[in-house]
Amino acid sequence: MKIHEIGEFGFIDRISGMFRHLLLPDFLGIGDDCAIIPYNEKEDYVITTDLLIEDIHFLKHRITPGQLGYKSLAVNLSDIAAMGAEPVGSFLSIGIPAETEVEYLDALMEGYHKLSQKYKVPLLGGDTTKSKKYLTINVGIVGKCRRGKALLRSMAQSGDIVCVTGFLGDSAGGLEVLLNNLPETKDNLQLILSHHLPEPHVKEGLWLAKQSGVHAMMDVSDGISSDLMHILKASGKSAVVELDKIPVSDTLRKVTVAKGWDLDKLVTCGGEDYVLLCTVEAGSLASIKAGFKTVFSRDLIQIGRIIEGESRINWMKNSQQVVLNKHGFDHFSV
Amino acid sequence: MKIHEIGEFGFIDRISGMFRHLLLPDFLGIGDDCAIIPYNEKEDYVITTDLLIEDIHFLKHRITPGQLGYKSLAVNLSDIAAMGAEPVGSFLSIGIPAETEVEYLDALMEGYHKLSQKYKVPLLGGDTTKSKKYLTINVGIVGKCRRGKALLRSMAQSGDIVCVTGFLGDSAGGLEVLLNNLPETKDNLQLILSHHLPEPHVKEGLWLAKQSGVHAMMDVSDGISSDLMHILKASGKSAVVELDKIPVSDTLRKVTVAKGWDLDKLVTCGGEDYVLLCTVEAGSLASIKAGFKTVFSRDLIQIGRIIEGESRINWMKNSQQVVLNKHGFDHFSV
Repeated sequence: MKIHEIGEFGFIDRISGMFRHLLLPDFLGIGDDCAIIPYNEKEDYVITTDLLIEDIHFLKHRITPGQLGYKSLAVNLSDIAAMGAEPVGSFLSIGIPAETEVEYLDALMEGYHKLSQKYKVPLLGGDTTKSKKYLTINVGIVGKCRRGKALLRSMAQSGDIVCVTGFLGDSAGGLEVLLNNLPETKDNLQLILSHHLPEPHVKEGLWLAKQSGVHAMMDVSDGISSDLMHILKASGKSAVVELDKIPVSDTLRKVTVAKGWDLDKLVTCGGEDYVLLCTVEAGSLASIKAGFKTVFSRDLIQIGRIIEGESRINWMKNSQQVVLNKHGFDHFSV
Repeated sequence: MKIHEIGEFGFIDRISGMFRHLLLPDFLGIGDDCAIIPYNEKEDYVITTDLLIEDIHFLKHRITPGQLGYKSLAVNLSDIAAMGAEPVGSFLSIGIPAETEVEYLDALMEGYHKLSQKYKVPLLGGDTTKSKKYLTINVGIVGKCRRGKALLRSMAQSGDIVCVTGFLGDSAGGLEVLLNNLPETKDNLQLILSHHLPEPHVKEGLWLAKQSGVHAMMDVSDGISSDLMHILKASGKSAVVELDKIPVSDTLRKVTVAKGWDLDKLVTCGGEDYVLLCTVEAGSLASIKAGFKTVFSRDLIQIGRIIEGESRINWMKNSQQVVLNKHGFDHFSV
């Protein structure tokens, strides 16, 4: 059997049980955006790591080295944000083909440094080595959060409102623009920027983790159709999501109409938006939304709700249930 | 300018200063076997990461998947050992070509698990992703040690005795056997095993860190001619190393004679032995050597001494100074 037949999550399922008996108390292992290891009496550390390989995760001729350095750190900061934690240090492993220009690497490190500077997160170590052909980047990151207060995927409760902290689909739109070599219009360039320079919602995550009504949280890296399922499986719940409520940027809406793209599919299955997906106690929603608006000058957007039932997403459009299949969304039929 | 012109350490020199102003107190950043982040009142965490890429760090058809899984963790455990720390958890990022057999990965994880089990170090997280062509493995690891008691490269003092915890050169000998496709005799196989299944000196590191006379420590990954230089540069010292005192296994000695290899070069420039290199206060040496022998049933071997002066290794052979150049060791000439 080949690995592509079982996929990433199939492989993780195979190995995650193997190490559980070695876990010490106060540690959280495989299965969330980050692992948790104890820190002091008031805080925990959260740790995660992400691997980016040329021609799989990025096209070297379509992303500038500065953007690549920035994005390598951004996607990891997003995982720290998803726990409601604050980043404290990063680790960079880099496999470099021999013919790489030092100037290219300098620019890559400038992009990495710029974002490190913004969130005051030092590079603490790593590994530098040759690579045969593909530029290979692994970033590890450590954050800290209040002890026992990390927001886990397993914390969703029935009746919770499902919210996101920003637009979905822009990054996937940018990828479409790149893959189809669309002209570099202002709108197209903006979508590409969303894909290359995602802003990790670190401050949003920290703020949300302080609100007692926020239960489960994770970041949107694979698209909500996949990401929300992780919350549902970890929490043993079901969800209803209303496609009409998913926040879409004017730019994406415009380009989508012009190009005839499937908007619903882009916003649910397109990944790499790196906004946060959280579930909020219904009774606290109004005050949390008001607080979020005051602090961040934009809305925390409700897109659905958590219900009892087997782990699945019930998609609604114009108040009717629809099903997601490989061609997109269809009307629900038994 | 191409990266191969400045090399790994040239690149690290370029970036290590960029992040220093972001370091919080009690943190140690780039420059040692591990970074250090504070834990509780009694302990620190140490963290490191290592990237292994197919055809650069291993030949997939010459190392079994179980050995590869084992070695990926072993080289990181060795960095934890080098700080005098105890491993508490690991992180595995793996980039997998689509055509990889699941059975291959199962065997790889079995090797990883076997060593995890031995040192009671759980896999806490990671990343699984596609790779275009080359199997790519990044392991991150967290350890803990007594607060402020990690053994750093910068701690060597004049008059210290330079010691190693085991044979040097076996792993390099094994690599020679592999690269030259030598027949699989018992001796050759033993050298290959040293290369594929290095035993990290975790217990030795923990024990040495408890002895007050042990000053600087690191692990031998690139060969002592390179590794000891890191200690000398970090400590601002010079060293004398006596080639005759470097511990060599009977097997390596035998194969070296038969094949006409340059033994001195193998044991000083050959890497991946993953024994520990430390500097010990001269006055404590006898008792530390005696204690080491009692606990580990083998010798802590003295190979040289730390002296004042610019950071360089003064090699001695048969009481005469020799110089190391690309052809090997020559008699010293002004």
